[in-house]
Amino acid sequence: MQVLIIGAAGMVGRKLSERLVRDKALNGKSIDKLVLVDVVAPAQPAGFAGKVESVAADLSAPGKAEAMIAGRPDVIFHLAAVVSGEAEADFDKGYRINLDGTRALLEAVRKAGEGYHPKLAFTSSAAVFGAPFPEAIHDEFHLTPLTSYGTQKAIGELLLADYHRRGFLDGVGLRFPTICVRPGRPNKAASGFFSSIIREPLAGEEAVLPVPENVRHTHASPRSAVGFLVHAAGLTREALGNRINLTMPGVSCTVGEEIAALRRIAGDKVAARIRRESDPTIARIVGGWPQRLEGKRALALGFTAETSFDDIVRAHIEDELAGKIAA
Amino acid sequence: MQVLIIGAAGMVGRKLSERLVRDKALNGKSIDKLVLVDVVAPAQPAGFAGKVESVAADLSAPGKAEAMIAGRPDVIFHLAAVVSGEAEADFDKGYRINLDGTRALLEAVRKAGEGYHPKLAFTSSAAVFGAPFPEAIHDEFHLTPLTSYGTQKAIGELLLADYHRRGFLDGVGLRFPTICVRPGRPNKAASGFFSSIIREPLAGEEAVLPVPENVRHTHASPRSAVGFLVHAAGLTREALGNRINLTMPGVSCTVGEEIAALRRIAGDKVAARIRRESDPTIARIVGGWPQRLEGKRALALGFTAETSFDDIVRAHIEDELAGKIAA
Repeated sequence: MQVLIIGAAGMVGRKLSERLVRDKALNGKSIDKLVLVDVVAPAQPAGFAGKVESVAADLSAPGKAEAMIAGRPDVIFHLAAVVSGEAEADFDKGYRINLDGTRALLEAVRKAGEGYHPKLAFTSSAAVFGAPFPEAIHDEFHLTPLTSYGTQKAIGELLLADYHRRGFLDGVGLRFPTICVRPGRPNKAASGFFSSIIREPLAGEEAVLPVPENVRHTHASPRSAVGFLVHAAGLTREALGNRINLTMPGVSCTVGEEIAALRRIAGDKVAARIRRESDPTIARIVGGWPQRLEGKRALALGFTAETSFDDIVRAHIEDELAGKIAA
Repeated sequence: MQVLIIGAAGMVGRKLSERLVRDKALNGKSIDKLVLVDVVAPAQPAGFAGKVESVAADLSAPGKAEAMIAGRPDVIFHLAAVVSGEAEADFDKGYRINLDGTRALLEAVRKAGEGYHPKLAFTSSAAVFGAPFPEAIHDEFHLTPLTSYGTQKAIGELLLADYHRRGFLDGVGLRFPTICVRPGRPNKAASGFFSSIIREPLAGEEAVLPVPENVRHTHASPRSAVGFLVHAAGLTREALGNRINLTMPGVSCTVGEEIAALRRIAGDKVAARIRRESDPTIARIVGGWPQRLEGKRALALGFTAETSFDDIVRAHIEDELAGKIAA
């Protein structure tokens, strides 16, 4: 079993690599070789008995997609993308990486010939949905992205479904909810505060909350995100049916409920490290995002996520803080 | 006012050209120049006082999209497409014309600069929807195409919406129901019988019905299709809102109801020219198509279609047969 991860240097890509190294197997088969690709060469995960190849390459550059699949990986995880803010700021780059890059990968697989037929798991996003929304976004809600990133992800889903239907590969697309708590330093993403209001207080630092506590959103932990990908790799065509792009499950809760969970788990002193400082720009951006994703089909297909925000906080403490909270 | 029609040699393109020549104006402004483009040079419509340019060009060929918009048309009708059967049979050609061609046009507009900001009306299709369906396809039903053609149309819609949102153009996408009665000779399209069971009997010829009479489908006349395009050209950004891709209205009825309408209008002798000869392949293909399209938003935005199949039969008799039925 050979596995290719495109976008392996990103947060989810790194954690997926670590999980596969730890599991040593995927879909019940031993992993002989792991090919890790990103625009910068991904770090080699420690403690893997098989071969690891770390490659720096831009998927959208001529010949690169073909090179990435030269070893005919059995499973491809395609996580590479220019993120939302950058795709909005740089129209050409967003379309080049997120649309042309994805298409280059699909075309490389189609043209490989010799019966090559990999499993391809693609990370999409709740950004394929745009306001106005129903109270909960069900599995048959239409694709109405309001960003170039969301448009590119929606197009990726459609292409993947057509290549799957035509029998060129076995595809599955996963619309991730907002992954929280992201490890690492605060970033400039409009969604960054969802992670920082948990991460910073647990690390003994102050965090800023720029939106009202009644803001509702849907989350899953990094651990769940990796779980989605591993589970997706094992789903059969028969189980998936025609509709291979799935909204992943998650916890829908308000910011107030998130803070209450933090307080339950870490105490008042930690929760008091959140400073309210309203930012109308961030509030407006977040106001255009889906509040509640249902993910019923995904749950029926065996995908699992946390069922309470308490579990999301605990996952962060276990996976990133070795169980220790800064008093 | 300058108008560009890409796909002007097709049935709807020809009728749109004739309508514009007859109206001499669009959106209340006099048409000075009409540019008609298709892979074969479209016929020059008779009786037009302004300039007509007839061009043979492939939209997807390098530089052609830029050349088509060199005169900076105020309104662009983009009707050009490889049809469903061909896009399924020739994967590369379908993506080249229907996806790359559409994108080349959008990119040419974006890169034109100098404040160029045309209205672009794009014909999409009910093929963006794939089974299983609810009883009626409402305006928020998701895009789940089950053909490469439907995939390419859905991607065209998403691209158009993003270019519109970014302010590069004023876009509007129109999902046509099955246009019926198509003039001309029978063709090999799986949907061909919907037109031929009306057209041939009215012309004194026999037609074959390959599906059961309880098959339900949604139709609009060629006259309505042209009306959709002309109305779309006049819609403002404000009226359209974010969701610029609209399912057009039509008449949802069974084949049995269609035959009853033909009998009411043309008599028993004409209706008796329909021969039942079941074709399981056609029945299977048609079984995967939407039965009932609602088009509520389009109706609210002022789009109009026939409200009974009787009107569809009458439109054909008036527009194609000069009012005469073959006894």
